[in-house]
Amino acid sequence: MIDPTLANLIDSIRQKKPIIHHITNSVSVNDCANVTLSIGAAPVMAEDLEEVEEMVSQASALVLNIGTLSRKQVNAMLTAGRVANRCDIPVILDPVGAGATKLRTESARLLIDRTDISVLKGNAGEIGVLAGAGGSVKGVDSHGLDEDPLMVGQEYAERLGFTVAISGVHDIVTDGHHSMVVDNGHAIMGTLSGTGCMAASLTGVFAAICPDHVASSATALAAFGIAGERAAQEASGPYSFKTALMDNISQLNRNDLLTSARIRSV
Amino acid sequence: MIDPTLANLIDSIRQKKPIIHHITNSVSVNDCANVTLSIGAAPVMAEDLEEVEEMVSQASALVLNIGTLSRKQVNAMLTAGRVANRCDIPVILDPVGAGATKLRTESARLLIDRTDISVLKGNAGEIGVLAGAGGSVKGVDSHGLDEDPLMVGQEYAERLGFTVAISGVHDIVTDGHHSMVVDNGHAIMGTLSGTGCMAASLTGVFAAICPDHVASSATALAAFGIAGERAAQEASGPYSFKTALMDNISQLNRNDLLTSARIRSV
Amino acid sequence: MIDPTLANLIDSIRQKKPIIHHITNSVSVNDCANVTLSIGAAPVMAEDLEEVEEMVSQASALVLNIGTLSRKQVNAMLTAGRVANRCDIPVILDPVGAGATKLRTESARLLIDRTDISVLKGNAGEIGVLAGAGGSVKGVDSHGLDEDPLMVGQEYAERLGFTVAISGVHDIVTDGHHSMVVDNGHAIMGTLSGTGCMAASLTGVFAAICPDHVASSATALAAFGIAGERAAQEASGPYSFKTALMDNISQLNRNDLLTSARIRSV
Repeated sequence: MIDPTLANLIDSIRQKKPIIHHITNSVSVNDCANVTLSIGAAPVMAEDLEEVEEMVSQASALVLNIGTLSRKQVNAMLTAGRVANRCDIPVILDPVGAGATKLRTESARLLIDRTDISVLKGNAGEIGVLAGAGGSVKGVDSHGLDEDPLMVGQEYAERLGFTVAISGVHDIVTDGHHSMVVDNGHAIMGTLSGTGCMAASLTGVFAAICPDHVASSATALAAFGIAGERAAQEASGPYSFKTALMDNISQLNRNDLLTSARIRSV
Repeated sequence: MIDPTLANLIDSIRQKKPIIHHITNSVSVNDCANVTLSIGAAPVMAEDLEEVEEMVSQASALVLNIGTLSRKQVNAMLTAGRVANRCDIPVILDPVGAGATKLRTESARLLIDRTDISVLKGNAGEIGVLAGAGGSVKGVDSHGLDEDPLMVGQEYAERLGFTVAISGVHDIVTDGHHSMVVDNGHAIMGTLSGTGCMAASLTGVFAAICPDHVASSATALAAFGIAGERAAQEASGPYSFKTALMDNISQLNRNDLLTSARIRSV
Repeated sequence: MIDPTLANLIDSIRQKKPIIHHITNSVSVNDCANVTLSIGAAPVMAEDLEEVEEMVSQASALVLNIGTLSRKQVNAMLTAGRVANRCDIPVILDPVGAGATKLRTESARLLIDRTDISVLKGNAGEIGVLAGAGGSVKGVDSHGLDEDPLMVGQEYAERLGFTVAISGVHDIVTDGHHSMVVDNGHAIMGTLSGTGCMAASLTGVFAAICPDHVASSATALAAFGIAGERAAQEASGPYSFKTALMDNISQLNRNDLLTSARIRSV
């Protein structure tokens, strides 16, 4: 169910140990660092305007997450994005809570306008709001999208020229021309804070070593979902799940992806 | 030892999934998010002045915690508190370290003066300082209160017109007229960072769905204490305790409260 | 392999419960709080300019860590450092990422120039850069130091008049006159975010109760390494390792240090 070339990415990550620069929220910043390390890459967090340029130029991907944003942080993201584009490294944007407040919606739009985003990863509500397709977001949770998420994603991705990844029971990844659905994952993931942010970090890690961002994003989400499925078997609640999730990510290998990834082209 | 109506609150939380808006410290922000999710509610963290009003208006309770405060953050708390009062949702204040520095003491007082606080939850030292009853705080730990905490809490609660919750070996909850003591909990909770903050988050969750804030706070502290007692049995140190604590909170049900809550009116 | 007097420090920590003031990064701030509590001390985090002076004056050590620095935070560190020096409590500096960006290198140098640092704890690349010995740092990882780290550390420590602790497979601690190598530790520590920061926190805890900072730092690193070795035996990945690490730190006793510390004078 997965191209062997994609399964190989997990070995490449561990060989290359790409630096993944994050500008992210204060809630899950530690989780993002640990998930990046667990898969075998090297996280770095830096958001002071005086150093973002230098730090991005050492990185292999940039992950932006507006979960606890401020104008100052958005400015750092814009600068970091500009340098990432100039260095030709992929930029992942997780528009956490877009649709819930004007600041979040406008900041996500500003980042999309001014930065060449590689992968926009959000829940159905967030993507629906940003695509102008009528999504609803309360707090940081999707409260639905009237239209079909796949069609919304395809139209939006093609119009904007990036890859859209929509998280959900079935994750959708599309650039408008090629679309994949990832069926891995487990309901318990929704009971742990930061799983969406961790998925964005892994999307950044895989994008760093694979230029096909539909394929790399689908592989990242499958890898995360497989680890989640296995961790769920060992867990008796959200925090034993967290422990098992990080452990399972660190243990994932090429063969796990070959046997357990459930990715289908649609 | 608990009114069956109060034991039912745990089911209501899971049905209603109330959004709990936090403006809190950088140390335990992830723990606050996870404890809120574990009990079945929906955490959101937002503190930029440009978005707090909008975010609070979507929430069912507001939790303010000054553990790593700044003037800017206190301003956001004041605005959030004003909107919460207008929307008539409960406001919980955890005055972490009040008494240790002038900034903390004055900020807590300012928040109490300008906001209609529903529940003030602190340790004996913090409450003693704020009530003007001569408490002592070093760092973020209570270093004692000469007078009887119950009497200090009762007098202060009646004078200010809110509920006071004083954490300790025996938690005290009072509005001056009705007072309860919660005997649940375990000494190991003091060896884990953020347990006080988590207790404030749960106090917010229960306040969100129950207008009697003495009863809701006592139930929240009993629920937290029961989970702590059970987790302590499974733990071999502070971090296996943390894992078991979050897991046990997610597993708590109505019957656990009925059989294990130790709440007494005093 | 350890002086019994040093093994006794672990009991002193639990008796005195020294307050350790941290101004640190947003990624590992929770880990620093928990490791400090686990060993038996009392963490406090405060970085608003209006309160740092008051908070430092209650503390027994100050730990500065530039992992997610800003000019504003560096200013707070300078003020805190000045008060710590006046109060004659030890100041530990962890120059995370010095060498990776100009802001980090210059901020670390500024802190060293203006503050009487007791222990400078970094990886070989960071120390090499700051000592002017040609280290290389990418992101927050050491990418090597051409010269012998022991000689670089000795020369730098003697020149600046502080203790230098260089983390690595074999940790080096030196004040230029006396040098120790700590052989405890385990490779899995490198797969968990924040272990370097936790080591700096423990270095602060031990410095708080022992004026010989070569000996106190070596003991801190040995204690951390012993807990790491034991945790590695129980772990199946980075997060079960984290759980076991914190638990083992809380369980460490005098006898563990006597039997398992591998500290040698060089």
